[in-house]
Amino acid sequence: MEQPVIYLDNNATTRVAPEVLEAMLPYFCERYGNPSSIHTFGGSVADDIEQARCRVADLLGASFRDRDGIASEIIFTSCGTEGDNAAINAAFNARPGRNKLVTTAVEHPAVLAYAKELERLGREVVLVPVDGRGRLDMDFLKAAVDENTAVVSAMWANNETGTVFPVGEIAKIAHAAGALFHTDAVQAAGKVPVDVEALEIDFLSISGHKLHAPKGVGALYVRRGVRFSRLLFGGHQEKGRRGGTENVTSVIGLGKACEMALASLEKDAARLAELRGRLEEKITSAIPGTHVNGDLENRLPNTSSISFDGIEGESILMMLNMYGICASSGSACTTGSLEPSHVMRAMGIPYTSAHGTVRFSLSCYNTAEEIDKVAEVLPPIIARLRSISPFWEENK
Amino acid sequence: MEQPVIYLDNNATTRVAPEVLEAMLPYFCERYGNPSSIHTFGGSVADDIEQARCRVADLLGASFRDRDGIASEIIFTSCGTEGDNAAINAAFNARPGRNKLVTTAVEHPAVLAYAKELERLGREVVLVPVDGRGRLDMDFLKAAVDENTAVVSAMWANNETGTVFPVGEIAKIAHAAGALFHTDAVQAAGKVPVDVEALEIDFLSISGHKLHAPKGVGALYVRRGVRFSRLLFGGHQEKGRRGGTENVTSVIGLGKACEMALASLEKDAARLAELRGRLEEKITSAIPGTHVNGDLENRLPNTSSISFDGIEGESILMMLNMYGICASSGSACTTGSLEPSHVMRAMGIPYTSAHGTVRFSLSCYNTAEEIDKVAEVLPPIIARLRSISPFWEENK
Repeated sequence: MEQPVIYLDNNATTRVAPEVLEAMLPYFCERYGNPSSIHTFGGSVADDIEQARCRVADLLGASFRDRDGIASEIIFTSCGTEGDNAAINAAFNARPGRNKLVTTAVEHPAVLAYAKELERLGREVVLVPVDGRGRLDMDFLKAAVDENTAVVSAMWANNETGTVFPVGEIAKIAHAAGALFHTDAVQAAGKVPVDVEALEIDFLSISGHKLHAPKGVGALYVRRGVRFSRLLFGGHQEKGRRGGTENVTSVIGLGKACEMALASLEKDAARLAELRGRLEEKITSAIPGTHVNGDLENRLPNTSSISFDGIEGESILMMLNMYGICASSGSACTTGSLEPSHVMRAMGIPYTSAHGTVRFSLSCYNTAEEIDKVAEVLPPIIARLRSISPFWEENK
Repeated sequence: MEQPVIYLDNNATTRVAPEVLEAMLPYFCERYGNPSSIHTFGGSVADDIEQARCRVADLLGASFRDRDGIASEIIFTSCGTEGDNAAINAAFNARPGRNKLVTTAVEHPAVLAYAKELERLGREVVLVPVDGRGRLDMDFLKAAVDENTAVVSAMWANNETGTVFPVGEIAKIAHAAGALFHTDAVQAAGKVPVDVEALEIDFLSISGHKLHAPKGVGALYVRRGVRFSRLLFGGHQEKGRRGGTENVTSVIGLGKACEMALASLEKDAARLAELRGRLEEKITSAIPGTHVNGDLENRLPNTSSISFDGIEGESILMMLNMYGICASSGSACTTGSLEPSHVMRAMGIPYTSAHGTVRFSLSCYNTAEEIDKVAEVLPPIIARLRSISPFWEENK
């Protein structure tokens, strides 16, 4: 990159914290032993993995430690997708005779694409709709969860709008019907307080690269007492619950990232909400025909989804890109599609508006100066794009 | 560790090459964009991933490039286990109506544990036996592969003895029956020449951490024209064949490691075979009642499996560990079991001998001085252990 980048795409991925990289470094070329090995050189690494596991458990409010002091409710995975797939697969196995998955219309593809596959294999899948603010239709959900429901899966916070779902309430509804509850907390962990015990969550998946750990590592919380069956079959790693040599360096990094996130959660959330408010205030006051999407009362502090009437989000992003400003139109995991995102469609955002949606997602590395720079360059970009847009003329 | 470690456990895992780490470093805190992002900051990372994909393809002899120059036969995975599971799963889906998996008695748990699960789900699984030298019973295999066989899975080289299977011949037998062929080349890649095209292989899995890339990344070769169905369901990554944000840093590392392995393959193989020969010669000439296991005519150049009559392998390893010497009794993935490994049992190695088996596995970082040190400390260790062993008295 020729110019300093203003990175406002932290829901897509985050910068690895330098402290995280520093914690990882010794495990590449020096302490590279296999944690399953009998020799001290490998075995000592196993101890460090258990330390990291405890740090992940701490962030999630999973206080249980087994008699060896191990946070055995945490299983390390390769990503959020694996965690989501594994949780839903395990839930069905733990509730034999029940055939239904109840999930939401605005889940990440890691849940929706897997749900589609399960449907192909004969499972029943029900998608709970949301309203124009991205809020879940709780009456619909209550009616959908029944004695045939094996698992309810609802994300903690939406990746596009930041809207937070009432996961504790949903868990109660699932349990009342004898079903299990899974939540994809990939966007929530490290941004808002997560307490799996208070909310009685059975399965919760996170991804390292959304909270300043590297890509390619995640964790799945499985509440003790819930029967887990593995998705990947191999060696005895992760207490037989996930085959494959441990991704040592990244697991160490994830532990450090979770420790850092927990320590600064409150402070960061307040600061990010303030920066986000500054961004939204400046944009909506300077540019007519803008709408902030999602549940404004109940959002992640770092996420802002803004629709600009009458123009294409992709064009906005291209022009922001020329200023070194990184944002996105929706999920990076659905990039390439010409349709408005499934989240915008589920919310019933009008077509001309949904098409012009930009997601700004902040991290602790962002500054007020960066926000001001974005707010400065955006109005002329929007004005220029609207001047050549047939849809904007229409709207007037 | 208080003393310099002599690491002879490279079939368990390897040191990340400093050059590999160096190639990875920029992608943690600087070039951390999501390769699926629309902005240049992320998109440029996607180009680097494609470079790495080509390097992996080069090592495997996969010369095909699609019209965009992409080595699209390579899918990045999180480990060898995922690759093995995914390949066998895909093969069954590609051969609907066929219900049988033919594999070998000496596969890694990534194949055997998955085979067991498939059996539970109603698939037929046949394990081809080996002889006392670990050589596959080819007549048994030929008879087992029939018109009901969806896939034959046979490892390229055994992780415990280094014995190399005739995978080209096995592929031909599979294809003659209309079945697909998968090989777990986790131990072979980077140690012996691999040519998927010459040998007409359909699926081949490798793992980064066995060839000086980091743990937590692997690759699966899927021959073009073979129908692939994914194991993990999520976003469109890997052309829709593997959901989950790309493990960018490790993929870059894997590409570099494959490039280095290919460049030094011949030289390293010759040097390792010489070091291994030196080790075996010194040990067997100095210590009575020792046996070198596996197919001595057809072995990986770096692997030596030696049985010491009348004593426990674990005791030998513990004492070697006191000298900072790292070796193993078998696969790290089966550590903790008190039984001799399934490989030794399949080879019919006598119980008292199988129990006293040590695997020494070398890498390009080992030196003749290290080998001599091991050969120096081992005889008194064996003598001492035998002096307190009831089994050794029996044997005399």
